[in-house]
Amino acid sequence: VPSRLPSVGTTIFTVMSALAQEHGAVNLGQGFPDFDCDPKLVDAVTQAMQQGLNQYPPMPGVPVLREAISAKLETLYHHRYDPGTEVTVTAGATQAILTAILCCVHPGDEVIVLEPCYDSYGPNIELAGGTIVRVPLTPGSFRPDFGLIAAAITPRTRAIIVNSPHNPSATVWTAEEMQQLAALLRPTQVLLISDEVYEHMVYDGRPHVSAASIPELAERAFLVSSFGKTYHVTGWKVGFVAAPAALMAEFRKVHQFNVFTVNTPVQHALARYMADASPYLDLPAFYQRKRDLFRAGLQANTRFKLLPSEGSYFQCVDYSAIDDSVSEADFCRRLTTELWVAAIPLSPFYAGGFEQRIVRFCFAKKDETLERALERLAQL
Amino acid sequence: VPSRLPSVGTTIFTVMSALAQEHGAVNLGQGFPDFDCDPKLVDAVTQAMQQGLNQYPPMPGVPVLREAISAKLETLYHHRYDPGTEVTVTAGATQAILTAILCCVHPGDEVIVLEPCYDSYGPNIELAGGTIVRVPLTPGSFRPDFGLIAAAITPRTRAIIVNSPHNPSATVWTAEEMQQLAALLRPTQVLLISDEVYEHMVYDGRPHVSAASIPELAERAFLVSSFGKTYHVTGWKVGFVAAPAALMAEFRKVHQFNVFTVNTPVQHALARYMADASPYLDLPAFYQRKRDLFRAGLQANTRFKLLPSEGSYFQCVDYSAIDDSVSEADFCRRLTTELWVAAIPLSPFYAGGFEQRIVRFCFAKKDETLERALERLAQL
Ligand SMILES: CSCCC(=O)C(=O)O
Ligand SMILES: CSCCC(=O)C(=O)O
Repeated sequence: VPSRLPSVGTTIFTVMSALAQEHGAVNLGQGFPDFDCDPKLVDAVTQAMQQGLNQYPPMPGVPVLREAISAKLETLYHHRYDPGTEVTVTAGATQAILTAILCCVHPGDEVIVLEPCYDSYGPNIELAGGTIVRVPLTPGSFRPDFGLIAAAITPRTRAIIVNSPHNPSATVWTAEEMQQLAALLRPTQVLLISDEVYEHMVYDGRPHVSAASIPELAERAFLVSSFGKTYHVTGWKVGFVAAPAALMAEFRKVHQFNVFTVNTPVQHALARYMADASPYLDLPAFYQRKRDLFRAGLQANTRFKLLPSEGSYFQCVDYSAIDDSVSEADFCRRLTTELWVAAIPLSPFYAGGFEQRIVRFCFAKKDETLERALERLAQL
Repeated sequence: VPSRLPSVGTTIFTVMSALAQEHGAVNLGQGFPDFDCDPKLVDAVTQAMQQGLNQYPPMPGVPVLREAISAKLETLYHHRYDPGTEVTVTAGATQAILTAILCCVHPGDEVIVLEPCYDSYGPNIELAGGTIVRVPLTPGSFRPDFGLIAAAITPRTRAIIVNSPHNPSATVWTAEEMQQLAALLRPTQVLLISDEVYEHMVYDGRPHVSAASIPELAERAFLVSSFGKTYHVTGWKVGFVAAPAALMAEFRKVHQFNVFTVNTPVQHALARYMADASPYLDLPAFYQRKRDLFRAGLQANTRFKLLPSEGSYFQCVDYSAIDDSVSEADFCRRLTTELWVAAIPLSPFYAGGFEQRIVRFCFAKKDETLERALERLAQL
């Protein structure tokens, strides 16, 4: 069969996790914690299963969870989403983004992505028959360049995908940047797909400025987030989308014919667990400490040049002082197979495989894991 | 936003389940059991969660589950699928079918569906940019008409979707029919998407003839099945696809950018649970008894004309002797709101909304539920 995605291979996250496992490497590649979730959350799933909540939930998600999501968004971002018509539970954020794209991008429509970006965006747009319009973030700083974004908007632009806190660069958009985005989109019909899966991982007192918190963005946005990232259960594959009712109606038309709906007991458990806000309110401090531990170790014992990590659970480093001749992918392979520490190259976050001698580490790990990785990296 | 699926509303299953709930009706509409799964399966999920198996599994699914699926398919259908490259765990069968279509259907390609069919097929093909070619099953008998299918094949035909045991008609394709399909596809490049989610629900000693069991079909087929249906956990949303490595490589390219992967603890639990074959080997007898109980009640106390139920968990009835003037949708609404028994009209399984005064009941219910429904239906 001729491929629908001829230029796509296996996603880098899977490739590096498999290599890490094969070599028994400390896996600082793929973005997931190596510590466990709150046992209360596990108990809540067990309880739901034992209560017999094991059959199809309503297609958009169980009402108690949609209400909890709506309440949380209203508290945090001061925007009210109607749980009946404006919130849908998804099988993770990746599914949410594909579904959002499939429901609004028509063949020939243009969708703007800011490079570097998560490797699903481009293929998602291709599958919808859309045209990917790639706008670079400012090289070096990875900040949005609104001049370039404005220049990329055409009458065919259907949507722009924005991601803050940003994977892989770990930048966090400021309120001013989000306002600039709002101003830029104001005279257009361009939709916003706002990937906010790291919404609770922002450091040094920075706020997360959600698209929900800016009315002009909220009215045109699919807001996407992830319970897996927030609650340390990336393997449970649950996220959500919030959007104005008219957009959500289109989203659900596609969602019902994609996954149809999402694991029932997990949804009930999350709804109960969300009654307590502290698990996510505590996250910035929790992860900032890990970030600082990891950064301090790298700074003291390696020749990596550290990029800022304002948010997300990633730390990017420039390794050109160590070896400027090796590609990012090869450097990551060497790290994994020789030093037994897995990392992710930045090049797969660019369609053209742009090389800048930067790799990404995930610090969502036990302290002892980070320390073990640091010891090994000190040998570089 | 202009809709990608302008003619699509909310799936009939969601509409009828919501109406059933609103009116406190006995829900014989949407296809799910109202009894619980084996508590051992629940315990296995709890155990996996407590063991800390809560982070991303490998993209195609956890190896132990893929091995268990492969072993089962080999035992039952005598075809060996390599668990490494030919089996992928999905977030249910609906996601599997969309993903299969997205990975092989190019804009302008034709895909043959046999009407009546599950309501996701058509929109799935539309989303891929394909052209839906609708071939009717023989009116009355719902058996495949190979003359019509042959006539529908053109050089643009990319795939055909076949579903046996069949939803909604409850027919089961015979070995001869599957062989006829094989013969018909032999000289072509047409792929087969074989929706076999009711593979373990076949009655009166009939075999389920899987596409996997016929080498000429297996080599061109995406075989799709569902753990939710087989193990009474429709709300867990786990299914699988098996296909030759070349097809599976394309499937995974899309899968990784759709759901990426599937709930980890559920996958581990299923792998353990599959060590015992009796839960699915016992299903034909288990459901045949329910079918017979339900059919006997309908025959004794209603004027419905019963269609055969050879497999699946559905029983279709012709209500024209009761009221030939009311549409299927209106009849189902009346049943739900006046007699408090929900059913599913057949018309949404046809793009044109074809009317034949037939509705579908799901008998995957506790005996007492079926008896309560029968009492109410006797008042018709
Ligand atoms: C599909 S892997 C997702 C993990 C992740 O977010 C990342 O590593 O970038
Ligand atoms: C998405 S609802 C699925 C249930 C089902 O298979 C049916 O009722 O036909």
